[in-house]
Amino acid sequence: MSFAATVLTLYPAMFPGPLGMALAGRALGDKWTLDVRDIRDSATDRHRSVDDTPAGGGPGMVMRADVLARAIDSAGGAGPRLLMSPRGRPFDQTLARDLAAGPGVTIVCGRFEGVDERVIERRGLIEVSIGDYILSGGEIGALAVLDAVVRLLPGVMGNATSADEESFSDDLLEHPQYTRPAEWEGAPIPPVLMSGDHGKIAAWRRDARLRLTAARRPDLFERRIPGEPVR
Amino acid sequence: MSFAATVLTLYPAMFPGPLGMALAGRALGDKWTLDVRDIRDSATDRHRSVDDTPAGGGPGMVMRADVLARAIDSAGGAGPRLLMSPRGRPFDQTLARDLAAGPGVTIVCGRFEGVDERVIERRGLIEVSIGDYILSGGEIGALAVLDAVVRLLPGVMGNATSADEESFSDDLLEHPQYTRPAEWEGAPIPPVLMSGDHGKIAAWRRDARLRLTAARRPDLFERRIPGEPVR
Repeated sequence: MSFAATVLTLYPAMFPGPLGMALAGRALGDKWTLDVRDIRDSATDRHRSVDDTPAGGGPGMVMRADVLARAIDSAGGAGPRLLMSPRGRPFDQTLARDLAAGPGVTIVCGRFEGVDERVIERRGLIEVSIGDYILSGGEIGALAVLDAVVRLLPGVMGNATSADEESFSDDLLEHPQYTRPAEWEGAPIPPVLMSGDHGKIAAWRRDARLRLTAARRPDLFERRIPGEPVR
Repeated sequence: MSFAATVLTLYPAMFPGPLGMALAGRALGDKWTLDVRDIRDSATDRHRSVDDTPAGGGPGMVMRADVLARAIDSAGGAGPRLLMSPRGRPFDQTLARDLAAGPGVTIVCGRFEGVDERVIERRGLIEVSIGDYILSGGEIGALAVLDAVVRLLPGVMGNATSADEESFSDDLLEHPQYTRPAEWEGAPIPPVLMSGDHGKIAAWRRDARLRLTAARRPDLFERRIPGEPVR
């Protein structure tokens, strides 16, 4: 059974976009399906309006509750309903794994100044943010969420080990990597990696991951090992 | 003068993608330019190899320092050089603003298990992450960074007020929004927003922003008002 992704957007031409290529693209139609709906098709007036001015005044436009609810109801997508929004719960690898374990996901892409709060409440939309920056709409956020989820679906990645050893699988960042040539611009590959001693290599990498995480992401480091001193 | 974006990728067909439409698309070629380079064009063997096995063993493949350095050098892009990577500094609105104030940005999209550490050091790549989740490559991250930056360029957004009042401009999330119809599925727009009393509306929105930020993002709330009690 295939993972069913549904996207509601004002820019259907943005999909599948990058998800139609590479890893996600090769799995599309097989391991996952993508149903893209144009929110504008749920407008009822002859101008196909989807937005109106904010109640109480202010700049920009707000997406209408009635139009968006109609789009959500007619799509009938599987899985939880996400609304991409900078106000949302930060999207993370745990949420990606949870979604990948389910039947699918429905993603609403916001645009304009926001979405009428009543449709968020009445249709149980879970506001999700891909990071602390502002995008011009939810579409690139939806692409990020789907890419993160699709690669975790069974059979999508060739090498299952890769998914386990990488950043965030255990709240540690990845160790540095090196490959041929053995020397480049006068810089050699660290000798330990060329030693063939698997125990030493594993210890070097573990140490590098701990140091890197402590230096760059003390928030992750402390979440993982509360109270343990940083060398 | 236009903002010069350069992207180095193994999937040039992913660009401009969503950035060719809507807000960023309308400004492309005028307020900003996009130079997309295929990293594979800098390979030197007849198989056009860009990667090799990790020194010291392990799953996956590592992008070669020599090939990537050649791609970076020949592109000669403007501005700081970013490498999209889950190990990176979290991308945020402050970095988006800093980049938008400069001449441009060069973005390297990683793929495979990682990039040879030596090219990161020797070419001064700044590792940047769009969030704590794993994507199949750096391309969607590059799209997110460029979208966040381009909308901040002078003349790109129609309404300058919108950029100032939104989430993260002052470390507070946005207040709820409402628009017509005044009543929908039995739910009215909050009466204060219909009162016409601008002072009361501003106070209601301020209060809503503080409450929402305290409830959903205590990390942002505490960064902003250290020690101030949450009601």
